[in-house]
Amino acid sequence: MGGTSEQPLAIVALSGGMDSCVTAAMMARTCRLALLHVTYGQLTAARERRAFGDIADFYGVPDSLRLVAGLDALGRIGGSSLTDRRIATPRPGRPGAGIPVSYVPFRNAHLLCVAVSWAEVIGADRVAIGAVEQDSPGYPDCRAAFFDAFQRVVEAGTRPETCVRIETPVIGMSKAEIVRKGVELGAPLHLTWSCYVSEDAPCGECDSCVLRGRAFESAGVADPCCS
Amino acid sequence: MGGTSEQPLAIVALSGGMDSCVTAAMMARTCRLALLHVTYGQLTAARERRAFGDIADFYGVPDSLRLVAGLDALGRIGGSSLTDRRIATPRPGRPGAGIPVSYVPFRNAHLLCVAVSWAEVIGADRVAIGAVEQDSPGYPDCRAAFFDAFQRVVEAGTRPETCVRIETPVIGMSKAEIVRKGVELGAPLHLTWSCYVSEDAPCGECDSCVLRGRAFESAGVADPCCS
Repeated sequence: MGGTSEQPLAIVALSGGMDSCVTAAMMARTCRLALLHVTYGQLTAARERRAFGDIADFYGVPDSLRLVAGLDALGRIGGSSLTDRRIATPRPGRPGAGIPVSYVPFRNAHLLCVAVSWAEVIGADRVAIGAVEQDSPGYPDCRAAFFDAFQRVVEAGTRPETCVRIETPVIGMSKAEIVRKGVELGAPLHLTWSCYVSEDAPCGECDSCVLRGRAFESAGVADPCCS
Repeated sequence: MGGTSEQPLAIVALSGGMDSCVTAAMMARTCRLALLHVTYGQLTAARERRAFGDIADFYGVPDSLRLVAGLDALGRIGGSSLTDRRIATPRPGRPGAGIPVSYVPFRNAHLLCVAVSWAEVIGADRVAIGAVEQDSPGYPDCRAAFFDAFQRVVEAGTRPETCVRIETPVIGMSKAEIVRKGVELGAPLHLTWSCYVSEDAPCGECDSCVLRGRAFESAGVADPCCS
């Protein structure tokens, strides 16, 4: 399932959540996968990393094409409920009401940097990330305009022969559409983890759990992680 | 010397080398300084970090405005003579002959990401980096076009109220002009470290040593680190 060597090589940023899992499933249709997981002091890092490993196993990605990178600076910089226990995680989730405190300042830029550096060295020509713009908590670094701008940075700041395209295949989808796409492609949604708070059972109350719950409900699909 | 609280707060990326030291000196004329040092598995990391601490002490920067961040991913990704001992450091330096093997893929993008995230949290409105375009080894992420593109990413990918300006005060200078500017401003050039290879005495032969040597010679100034 990892693809053949004739296919282009795509690095997929895989948090272990639903959106990145479906992004991997979409990229796997035409590309060999290299999977990148970033830890940045988030509270559920261990659980997310387990989900990453499970999904990478599912797609048969070899160890040489897996990278787990620690962005310790983001944890130390703080400023987010995901990285600082002194900032309460908002509940219930109220997407759309301004930038939520779960915003990790500029996180996706860090993530793309690691992916692009890795792409230059292993010769990947695509970097895919499961950002969602419309049906999202409103993080500024999840908007199409941000990724368009980042594409220009990649072109200006890498070797002349490097040609890496940033892809955001789910950015315009609703969360329900992402669930349906995942089911259609046989994505291992049962291996994903979305909760921002708990590492045992999903709390059901944080922004991420609420958005996920609505998505499965709206798609008319039972969430395999809540059975 | 750290400035007064009425002055704007500027984050300066301080490698510990000459260019970033003079950048700090230039920013210190009008701003309070916050200093960022990034380690990424470079061979002379310990020596560069010592230079960072010495320069931060010189400018009286408090601990709360110093950040040493580890970008471990860059070391593990490799692809550069600065991070991979299997890749020989070229000597003598031949600036202008293509992208040298000391190029660390997309490094300055990582560095700017850390600076911008930190700026969002501490309320700095400027991020300064001592990149040199013309009189440099030709790294793609040292070009003005790269920083211009990155400015757009900052505007697109941070909170609406965040306003961080990327500044590159030495980008158009020759290395000799940087030395002269440093002397003019009383920058602590004697505390800087440039060698890519050695942590004891400068090797005098790597790209960085050669460029530094030419700069001091051309400026007609004795290098305080080679006395």
